[in-house]
Amino acid sequence: MTQQVPKFNQPVLRPDLENNLVSGLMPSFALLDNIRSVWNVGSMFRTADAAGLGGLYLTGMTATPPRKDIEKTALGATLSVPWDYWKDSASAARNIKDQGISLVALEQTEKSVNWQDFEFPFPHCFIVGHEVSGVKSEILDLVDHSVEIPMAGVKHSLNVAVSFGILAYRIRQCWLEQNS
Amino acid sequence: MTQQVPKFNQPVLRPDLENNLVSGLMPSFALLDNIRSVWNVGSMFRTADAAGLGGLYLTGMTATPPRKDIEKTALGATLSVPWDYWKDSASAARNIKDQGISLVALEQTEKSVNWQDFEFPFPHCFIVGHEVSGVKSEILDLVDHSVEIPMAGVKHSLNVAVSFGILAYRIRQCWLEQNS
Repeated sequence: MTQQVPKFNQPVLRPDLENNLVSGLMPSFALLDNIRSVWNVGSMFRTADAAGLGGLYLTGMTATPPRKDIEKTALGATLSVPWDYWKDSASAARNIKDQGISLVALEQTEKSVNWQDFEFPFPHCFIVGHEVSGVKSEILDLVDHSVEIPMAGVKHSLNVAVSFGILAYRIRQCWLEQNS
Repeated sequence: MTQQVPKFNQPVLRPDLENNLVSGLMPSFALLDNIRSVWNVGSMFRTADAAGLGGLYLTGMTATPPRKDIEKTALGATLSVPWDYWKDSASAARNIKDQGISLVALEQTEKSVNWQDFEFPFPHCFIVGHEVSGVKSEILDLVDHSVEIPMAGVKHSLNVAVSFGILAYRIRQCWLEQNS
C-alpha cells in the first residue's frame, strides 16, 4: 500500500523500528494549533505513541521537546513519536494539504459531524486548537472536514488532551476496520 | 425504565435539572481508585460532565472538592457531577456491587476485553486506578469484567484521565445504541 506521508524536519526514530520512520504507524497525523499547556502537549505525545499516530505538527505557541515539563506527561514518548515545528499553524496546514493529505478539524462548527459517525480517510491530519479559542478560523477555512464530540453536560468542552485521545482511538478503530 | 442508582452522600444538583439528581444522566458511575494527580481528578470531573456520567466515587488518596487545584482542570464540573468519597476503595466497590451494579475495571489483565468490543451493561461502575500501580488487586478480585485499551507504541499505558475519556465516550455510545 502506497502512503503519502509528510516530511518531518526533526524525525526521531522509534527505538523498536529498524527500517522506516513510519513503518507500523498509521498515516494519521495531528496538528497542534497553538496549544497553551505544556502538560497537554506531553499528554498528546504519550497518546500519539499509544495509538500509533504517524507524527505531530507542533505550531505557534505549542511547546516543543526537549523540555522537562513536557516529559512530565510525555514520559519518553517524545523519543518515539515523529514531530515537526512550524511557527505559523495555517502555513503548516496549507503545506500538509498541498501534499494531498485531508485536513480534519476537531471543532464545533455548523458543518461538524459527530466524531462517531465520521469515517476518517487516510492519509489525514487532524487539528486540535488552543484551549480557549479553539482552532483558528484561518485554518477552519482550509479544512476538508470538521468533527465534534457532543457535550451532554453543563460545560461546553472537554480538555484538549482528552479530546485528542478520544479521536486518536476512533482513528485507530477506522484504520483497523479499513485494513482488516 | 427503572434504574438502580447508588446513593451519594454529597449529591450536588446539576443546575439545569430541576427534579432528580440523576435525571438525564446515564446509569454509569466511575470509581477513582487512589488517583494521585489532582489535575487528573479535575479532568475526570470535566469529562464526566461532558459524557453524562451518573457520578464519581473518589476513594483513598484521590483528592476531593472543593479545592482550587481540582478546579484548575474541572472548570466548574465539580458542581454538576454527583460524587461521593470512600476512604477504602475496595469497600466502596463492594458496596456498589451489593446494589446490583456491575463492576468493570480498566486494567490490563489476562481476562481483559478490548474496550471497543465490550458492550457496557447498565447500570455499571467502571474503575480506574492509580497512575503507576493501577487498579488494586483486591478490587480486581471483585470485578465482573475488565477492559483494556491496546497500546500500539513503545509506552505501556495512557494517561489515566485520557483513558477515562476514551471509556466514558465508548459508554455513551453503548448507552445511545441501547436506547435508540
